[in-house]
Amino acid sequence: MITKPTLPQGTRDFAPDVMLKRNYLISTIKQVFVKYGFLPLETPAMENLSVLTGKYGEEGDRLLYKLLNTGDFLKKADTEDFNDSNTLLKKISEKGLRYDLTVPFARFVAANQHDLVYPFKRYQIQPVWRSDRPQKGRYREFYQCDADVVGTKSLVCELEIIQMIREVFSLLQITDYTIKINHREIIRGLSEFIGFPGREAELSVAMDKLDKIGVDGVKKELVERGFNIESAEKLFIVLGITGETKEKISQLKNTLTVDSAQQGLADIETILNYLTLSDENWNHIEIDPSLARGLSYYTGSIFEVKINNIQIGSVSGGGRYDNLTGIFGGKDLPGVGFSFGIDRLYDAILELDLFPTDLVESTNCLIVHFDQESFDYGFSVLKNLRKNGISSEIFPEMAKLKKQLQYANKKNIPNVLFIGSEEIKTGIFTLRNMTDGAELKGTQADIINQLK
Amino acid sequence: MITKPTLPQGTRDFAPDVMLKRNYLISTIKQVFVKYGFLPLETPAMENLSVLTGKYGEEGDRLLYKLLNTGDFLKKADTEDFNDSNTLLKKISEKGLRYDLTVPFARFVAANQHDLVYPFKRYQIQPVWRSDRPQKGRYREFYQCDADVVGTKSLVCELEIIQMIREVFSLLQITDYTIKINHREIIRGLSEFIGFPGREAELSVAMDKLDKIGVDGVKKELVERGFNIESAEKLFIVLGITGETKEKISQLKNTLTVDSAQQGLADIETILNYLTLSDENWNHIEIDPSLARGLSYYTGSIFEVKINNIQIGSVSGGGRYDNLTGIFGGKDLPGVGFSFGIDRLYDAILELDLFPTDLVESTNCLIVHFDQESFDYGFSVLKNLRKNGISSEIFPEMAKLKKQLQYANKKNIPNVLFIGSEEIKTGIFTLRNMTDGAELKGTQADIINQLK
Repeated sequence: MITKPTLPQGTRDFAPDVMLKRNYLISTIKQVFVKYGFLPLETPAMENLSVLTGKYGEEGDRLLYKLLNTGDFLKKADTEDFNDSNTLLKKISEKGLRYDLTVPFARFVAANQHDLVYPFKRYQIQPVWRSDRPQKGRYREFYQCDADVVGTKSLVCELEIIQMIREVFSLLQITDYTIKINHREIIRGLSEFIGFPGREAELSVAMDKLDKIGVDGVKKELVERGFNIESAEKLFIVLGITGETKEKISQLKNTLTVDSAQQGLADIETILNYLTLSDENWNHIEIDPSLARGLSYYTGSIFEVKINNIQIGSVSGGGRYDNLTGIFGGKDLPGVGFSFGIDRLYDAILELDLFPTDLVESTNCLIVHFDQESFDYGFSVLKNLRKNGISSEIFPEMAKLKKQLQYANKKNIPNVLFIGSEEIKTGIFTLRNMTDGAELKGTQADIINQLK
Repeated sequence: MITKPTLPQGTRDFAPDVMLKRNYLISTIKQVFVKYGFLPLETPAMENLSVLTGKYGEEGDRLLYKLLNTGDFLKKADTEDFNDSNTLLKKISEKGLRYDLTVPFARFVAANQHDLVYPFKRYQIQPVWRSDRPQKGRYREFYQCDADVVGTKSLVCELEIIQMIREVFSLLQITDYTIKINHREIIRGLSEFIGFPGREAELSVAMDKLDKIGVDGVKKELVERGFNIESAEKLFIVLGITGETKEKISQLKNTLTVDSAQQGLADIETILNYLTLSDENWNHIEIDPSLARGLSYYTGSIFEVKINNIQIGSVSGGGRYDNLTGIFGGKDLPGVGFSFGIDRLYDAILELDLFPTDLVESTNCLIVHFDQESFDYGFSVLKNLRKNGISSEIFPEMAKLKKQLQYANKKNIPNVLFIGSEEIKTGIFTLRNMTDGAELKGTQADIINQLK
């Protein structure tokens, strides 16, 4: 016996019922991106390894999927290369799979920088691949959903990130969530404030663990990293500041008096002022000076979104970077971007039971027949339904009524149209609603009106 | 100086202007699939090589992209494997990239055969990868766009393939095209008719070249393959039959009197009869007994679509197969499917200049400002436009009017809304149409009505 074929670990088929929900989620996000003037971009699944390598740190390099050279893959290799897997690797593999959408975007901008219109706003929704150890909610193939603006330092971009997040969540009917905001300059200011100027990278790594290891854990880690206990205590004076956003900013301004932090706080105030000018409130927003997202390339604002009261991690995040394309030899363009985590959002919406129940991208009506005559007659009715834009099918074989109705039931087809010799004679058909069993009798025109 | 990063040969970025056209093309096709009751499916980019290998012939195996095992890729290999690239390959690579959508679909059906509702109608639109030599119109990453039905032998499926092709072409405004139809049993009958029963595979290979090498070329090839000149002459008696479809079928029935061919012709007659029952004509259809599509797995009908008068090859094709899932140990399900070649269709529509000129998935209106006051005021107007579903932007920086208008022009933003101190005072704004320069003066409500 042949065993059933399996899928590579960490990858998934998206069967029709899942696709419907995913399409709803993705098209909701896309529609908001478009409303804010973002344009679509797609890049190839494979990139030259010279483009990918060294962009994601040592771990990233390890998690990159590499493609064997085509043709005779050993062509460039010698027997002695076999003793050094790194040397061999370079000779047998020159391409890899996309690891995220940011580096391909940077490559695109660097290659086309003289042809783009700035500010260039693009969105990109494509799968990426990482050979991470698969676990709940972590896959080796998953979708990213990015929107970035390059070519301007305007804080209007930050405003629009907040607006887009709130609009997407409102459309998805997610109400209980928090948009955390921080700024690279605030972290820099913190580092200076606690007496260790220039050490914000290490400070960030420790603060990033606050949710996991708690206040005492972070203090301990700071001491281990060469900060002292006084600096750790001082840090938590700042991180302990709570209250309404307006009040919190004011307290932070009074406490974190170093210049850099003042600059960061001023940026955040501008962004919030833009919200007010847009006739919007500050709901869902929380200034969080400990937010660092572990990523050293942010140079300005930093964002992260969590859905409250479910254990699913952040579902969106991003920030400002000012050196995206420089790595590819382009002139450095300021940029800011964010991303929705489709897989996590999907899981969250499922857990919150917020997927619409009427998601149908399937057949609206099945034509059921009783004999050769009604089967033949069904073709013209079917044509008529489809001409009127109604997704419909005829059961394609002569079959018992029970089998035809089962097909409708299993495929969640909401309506069934019966055609028998009586119907053909009188031109009056019966349409049955498969959910409540209600029946409508009428002409083809009546039926079409009902189905529309 | 760092050189510009390049893309792997045979792959492409889809910049926003291309994406708009591709999205239009893909959504047109998708909309027709949905109307005919097809459900969406997506499978992972990578499959186990055990699933892919041996399914596409020797050349296919060669053109498969293979992924290096993650972690220490040499873990399972010995130094002596280095002398035998096939053995080494098996030890360092266990996954490959999708080569088409049919094999992953068959794998999906085999793995889920007890959970599916039959007939199972699915569509799938995803990229595939082949390390073919890149040339005009041939890429290493390209999209396939498949629709298949498994679980029924009903010729209603064939009818719907014809209907879907005609509906897609009608929506795309392509008018001059030909749907060629043939049947495996007709080719079998031909082989018998010319005195070489059972040799239809070789016969197909020769006939497939008719367009390229002409009648004499095919005759020569047949003789070289061990057919004789009399059989070749006899073949062209059949292939020489021309005329209207009805007349042609009648002549073919009178000439190709062997049983198998009669069966094939009867199937085609049934399909055409279904068209008539659907109140449709037989336009665009041509019975072509030489059509084989080089593919040996077709067991019934065979389709191919060409756009007339342009040199672009076939843009759609498919047929019936009755042994798709058997290779994966599932029970053999009858199936029929076809596919649109997105890249060729794209090129064809471009060449025929049939892309709609009003394809916009971008900003509809740009808010232009003159000073800090009007910039600030712009936020609430922007919010109002977007609340009314209008894709819009504010130029995000203080900038000269000329720069702002240039942005609108280069991004093909059709409307510009001017906000200055006068506008703020009076509440009367000016909306300029960037195409014809026409201006509308009115309240925000007037402007919104105009933009909708």
